[in-house]
Amino acid sequence: MTQKLVAGLEPPYYTAVFTSLRPDAPEGYAETLADLRERVAAVPGFLGYESARTPGGIGITVAYFRDLEALDAWRLDAAHTAAKEHGREHWYEAYSVHIGKVERSYGFARG
Amino acid sequence: MTQKLVAGLEPPYYTAVFTSLRPDAPEGYAETLADLRERVAAVPGFLGYESARTPGGIGITVAYFRDLEALDAWRLDAAHTAAKEHGREHWYEAYSVHIGKVERSYGFARG
Repeated sequence: MTQKLVAGLEPPYYTAVFTSLRPDAPEGYAETLADLRERVAAVPGFLGYESARTPGGIGITVAYFRDLEALDAWRLDAAHTAAKEHGREHWYEAYSVHIGKVERSYGFARG
Repeated sequence: MTQKLVAGLEPPYYTAVFTSLRPDAPEGYAETLADLRERVAAVPGFLGYESARTPGGIGITVAYFRDLEALDAWRLDAAHTAAKEHGREHWYEAYSVHIGKVERSYGFARG
């Protein structure tokens, strides 16, 4: 579980918002996720991610990338592509991906 | 809790990604949230939202808007502004907001 927010991002950058519905803890999911987290961290231009899931409800992951080249490098990563296909067949009831260009962002942190 | 993904969005549209850290269920939070959900639904150009929170961890809400005018109307809503100020003082340890323009999106739903 991520316990810190991604901070210090300077626009412009890109967000990949991944929202999903799936049963809790399907078979093989945790191992695949751990592997993918290692792989995405090695993509040049990957800036971080945040992830949340309401038990029994929606999961949302937001990944931050410097530019579309970085985002597409991750999108086309072979292990990522294979995981998405496996996910459609075995894990997810539904998911959506929204690729956005961020021109404006702000935040707050208790001093 | 939202239990369905927002579907059928046609780019271009805008996402407001709100990620936050706060204690579970702070005082007054649930009532304010219920009020804000009613108010945002009345904003012309509001297309829906999804929300998730890992217990003890990060919360992420993604709200979808047709255009920046709709998004700014919500950003400047008086009750919303007041809730954000109250949230900074009483509820949140940290939060971030990322405003993105979506030109590309796709999804999957089991048939």
